[in-house]
Amino acid sequence: MTRYPGRYASTGVFVCFEGGEGGGKSTQSQLLAEHLRAQGYDVLLTREPGGTTVGAELRRIVLSPETGALGDKTEFLLYAADKAEHVETVVAPALEAGQVVITDRYVDSTLAYQGAGRALDPAEIEEVSRWATGDLRPHLTVLLDLEPAAGLGRFEGRDRIEGESLEFHQRVRASFLALAERDGEHYLVLDARRPIAELAAAVAARVAPLLGQAVRRPAAQAPLQAPLQDAP
Amino acid sequence: MTRYPGRYASTGVFVCFEGGEGGGKSTQSQLLAEHLRAQGYDVLLTREPGGTTVGAELRRIVLSPETGALGDKTEFLLYAADKAEHVETVVAPALEAGQVVITDRYVDSTLAYQGAGRALDPAEIEEVSRWATGDLRPHLTVLLDLEPAAGLGRFEGRDRIEGESLEFHQRVRASFLALAERDGEHYLVLDARRPIAELAAAVAARVAPLLGQAVRRPAAQAPLQAPLQDAP
Repeated sequence: MTRYPGRYASTGVFVCFEGGEGGGKSTQSQLLAEHLRAQGYDVLLTREPGGTTVGAELRRIVLSPETGALGDKTEFLLYAADKAEHVETVVAPALEAGQVVITDRYVDSTLAYQGAGRALDPAEIEEVSRWATGDLRPHLTVLLDLEPAAGLGRFEGRDRIEGESLEFHQRVRASFLALAERDGEHYLVLDARRPIAELAAAVAARVAPLLGQAVRRPAAQAPLQAPLQDAP
Repeated sequence: MTRYPGRYASTGVFVCFEGGEGGGKSTQSQLLAEHLRAQGYDVLLTREPGGTTVGAELRRIVLSPETGALGDKTEFLLYAADKAEHVETVVAPALEAGQVVITDRYVDSTLAYQGAGRALDPAEIEEVSRWATGDLRPHLTVLLDLEPAAGLGRFEGRDRIEGESLEFHQRVRASFLALAERDGEHYLVLDARRPIAELAAAVAARVAPLLGQAVRRPAAQAPLQAPLQDAP
């Protein structure tokens, strides 16, 4: 990893939610966005795959059962293309403008699903993914960790990826945990079975010290609202 | 290039036509296919981008003016995905079956257009392209070389790539020629302005000694037909 040591934006705050299916990533992304907007921060909520116009087309191609079997490298390279477009046209400009960027999935999902889950060489997968994203990394990745069986029960058969075997999803989970282990400073690992409000509070507390780099609107413009911890 | 030294199929024959716009690649691909079929060879004629189902969708995305601006890395990775699928599901199986595979564009087009023509690092482009294709190379690449201005006049404004500047297409041409120079053994460079039949005869002559690896149907099944050189 000497070639791709990680690059962190010097303005804005980049937060990513990762984890397997059914762990509540989109719920927690939205709750964090609402919490920060209530404090007056300028927040961009996005996701991968599909956070751009071309990305939405790629998301459709990759996830649709009608696509049928795709080669492992093909699937990986489509995700990498989505990622490149997402970083270049959405994430990087928002960070430059001082926004808080919250993304539902990012590079770790690619490394976990395509690298650990499939037959591809994880080192090569990581190299191409880092290249595609200019090695831009989240200041914080929140891993919503969940035993695969529980998550799959909620979404069984919904799309191509979620139709994979339980063993596949167990390898994916192990890969997410290994990535968090490798770089504890930039990760928050949470048990996704905890109550939604409790998880949201833990995320908010971990994000708070990072907000110095983010743009905040003048207090007069910010809506009056209780902090998330006190919400019902 | 120690990491990707080139891999050549041990069965079948892999021939690629390369070059800028308007050089007659598709005409010459078809003429070679007809010539070899007339001799009883089992020929697969294909192209990039778009030689597979998912590739056709990617070709539409990349070439349609409606897509608008795509990031350089995004465009490159979409071509790489097309290439990965094409090799894995079309080219490699046909070669294993002993077919003559003729493709209209392959890796050199990516290296020339995305590597030399754009702002990306050519070495990184080559590395990802070789990875995507398992470093499978044509036994022969026919480069139909043409001064860009002449070719562009025939197709001006037809799609996103052909709408690029003349200088862009000149860099592309130089890149194709450099690739041929680097590996003369596997290239045939022809002046695309020569008469069509003359070019076809030159290609057929260069391909002939390679055909020992190809499957030929019994003579009884091959249609009686004059060799290409004598065709009108």
